[in-house]
Amino acid sequence: MTTLEQTLAEIRPADPDAVAEARAHQDRLTKPRGALGALEEVAVRLAGIAAVSPPPIPEPAALAIFAADHGVHAQGVSPWPQEVTRQMVANFLAGGAVANAFANQVGAAVTVVDVGVAADLPPAPGLVVDKVAYGTADLSQGPAMTGRQAVSALEAGIAVARRLVGQGARCLVTGDMGIANTTASAALICAFTGRDAAEVTGRGTGVDDETLTRKVEVVRRALRVNGLSDGPAGTAGGAGPEAALRTLAAVGGLEHAAIAGFVLGAAALRVPVILDGVIAGSAALAAAALAPDAVDHCVAGHRSAEPGHAVALAHLGLRPLVELELRLGEGTGGLLAHPLVCAAARVMHEVATFDSAGVTEKDA
Amino acid sequence: MTTLEQTLAEIRPADPDAVAEARAHQDRLTKPRGALGALEEVAVRLAGIAAVSPPPIPEPAALAIFAADHGVHAQGVSPWPQEVTRQMVANFLAGGAVANAFANQVGAAVTVVDVGVAADLPPAPGLVVDKVAYGTADLSQGPAMTGRQAVSALEAGIAVARRLVGQGARCLVTGDMGIANTTASAALICAFTGRDAAEVTGRGTGVDDETLTRKVEVVRRALRVNGLSDGPAGTAGGAGPEAALRTLAAVGGLEHAAIAGFVLGAAALRVPVILDGVIAGSAALAAAALAPDAVDHCVAGHRSAEPGHAVALAHLGLRPLVELELRLGEGTGGLLAHPLVCAAARVMHEVATFDSAGVTEKDA
Repeated sequence: MTTLEQTLAEIRPADPDAVAEARAHQDRLTKPRGALGALEEVAVRLAGIAAVSPPPIPEPAALAIFAADHGVHAQGVSPWPQEVTRQMVANFLAGGAVANAFANQVGAAVTVVDVGVAADLPPAPGLVVDKVAYGTADLSQGPAMTGRQAVSALEAGIAVARRLVGQGARCLVTGDMGIANTTASAALICAFTGRDAAEVTGRGTGVDDETLTRKVEVVRRALRVNGLSDGPAGTAGGAGPEAALRTLAAVGGLEHAAIAGFVLGAAALRVPVILDGVIAGSAALAAAALAPDAVDHCVAGHRSAEPGHAVALAHLGLRPLVELELRLGEGTGGLLAHPLVCAAARVMHEVATFDSAGVTEKDA
Repeated sequence: MTTLEQTLAEIRPADPDAVAEARAHQDRLTKPRGALGALEEVAVRLAGIAAVSPPPIPEPAALAIFAADHGVHAQGVSPWPQEVTRQMVANFLAGGAVANAFANQVGAAVTVVDVGVAADLPPAPGLVVDKVAYGTADLSQGPAMTGRQAVSALEAGIAVARRLVGQGARCLVTGDMGIANTTASAALICAFTGRDAAEVTGRGTGVDDETLTRKVEVVRRALRVNGLSDGPAGTAGGAGPEAALRTLAAVGGLEHAAIAGFVLGAAALRVPVILDGVIAGSAALAAAALAPDAVDHCVAGHRSAEPGHAVALAHLGLRPLVELELRLGEGTGGLLAHPLVCAAARVMHEVATFDSAGVTEKDA
């Protein structure tokens, strides 16, 4: 069995007994029923992931930023030069990016993983080099990756998840860096949800109207040349793990594949994984197509300004915790959600019940 | 000069130079312009408050939970018995409430302030007794407080703000406890914004349809008997500080007045104050009517499920950071926002500029 096959075989759904116990416990706590809104569902979800109620407080978190380049950059879909990918990797490693500041705020360790940057990077502490290729091929001309490349990137993500959890992380946060990667995300979201390119393609880190129009056309062409535009909603590439892998290889990025693997690895280990923005959301669609139960182990950190992100989250059935119109990636939105996730779990440990605190319940 | 008058005289608006410098600095950082969405405005706001850019990271936070009872409870506006106010105060002091768990999560100290609980409370560490009355009078029958009581409660809140900042707090978070206090909040929001009772009155911690109908009627009656239902929008009680004080005394709660004072105290000291839910939102309307510049020093922690809260925040021009359908009070929503506020400030200190990091800016 390959590492990927073994990981897929290990993934189980949320534990129903822990979910039921967590829900019952929520209702005994000294607060009106449902008064913690969406956070109550987070606590229940964490119990389902850990298969125990109350679930452990998922600290510390570890952020993995998967970096890669994209052949589709040649189509003029981004105003940023491709070299910014490696420049930002250097910035992450020097501690100077927003992701670093947010990681410091929540006490998360940062690992940068080169799965496909189009340049050789000098070794540095915090950098894992597991380069599958020097960027993808242009997805608007044919498959972005070979099937073998996609599997290698998936397995790179799985390996990072296993290593970080082995080192003590109790919550994983997805991060990404790759100029032009919102184009690949839009194509993945179209392919996995059946939505139209115009609905899910956005301005990324800031493209003008003309570039946006071109970007939508590029996404359409990518779906067409890769045979992904003719099926019914959500099954354009066919159903099942093999079709999912084909779709991911056709229009994904190396960091998308690695993030999908990271999600699968977290799910196999029953450790919660906080999804960042549209890159993670589109990668999670691939992970879900490979192993539907993996979604039970995900928490949607935030909803970005990119229109495809809301589509992806709705398809996954995930409600984002933070909605502040971030559109940065790097894991920034996922990191911001981490204290909220911990707070939800902490309630289950530290809050008194009506009985224990001697607080009168409301009239029926 | 009274303490209140002195505090009002000390309040200044956001510092325009620091605001301009913070905005310019945001645009030099290694991220696309505006990519941090609403958090960029938080960072700019913090600079305006502190009158320096970059603004200090507002840690540690201190939560003050102002507790009081309400004569209007007699009208059957809540399914919870009044004694739950003092029972929950005991729960806060024992560390067993959700606010305690969230405060632990974000490293905030918790102070409980009895400004009007309808019972004598035994002394306890963390409890400040500054009781103005054993609860308010029934606002649906006449003024809830005398003008003197309202001023005393305001000054109690100012004193707590000054003490907590003196002890090292660099961010204040409002908290509240008082069975029936969403009724007073609805009345305050109607009086200060001119909106109809049916639009702003909600289910609080969980009332049924029949009770909600009664609650709306009680709010209407409160406005009528106190002469607050006949003016144009936002000026039903008249304009200016004296009218604001009259309105607050007529339909507010002792904890509303204390929270208004807490906000004014924070503003006078130029320390950011994170507003919790609808109780804080309605109290902030009173603070804003007393000193319009006080709003510059507020951050809206969250938007609760209570309909009046969105109305209050819109009137104040504040955008909430967390929107998770919380409806608990205690300061829970404000505490959850604290790491987000700190993250916004941290970006200003720790993130590299394009120049310093050698990252290429996007094509113009």
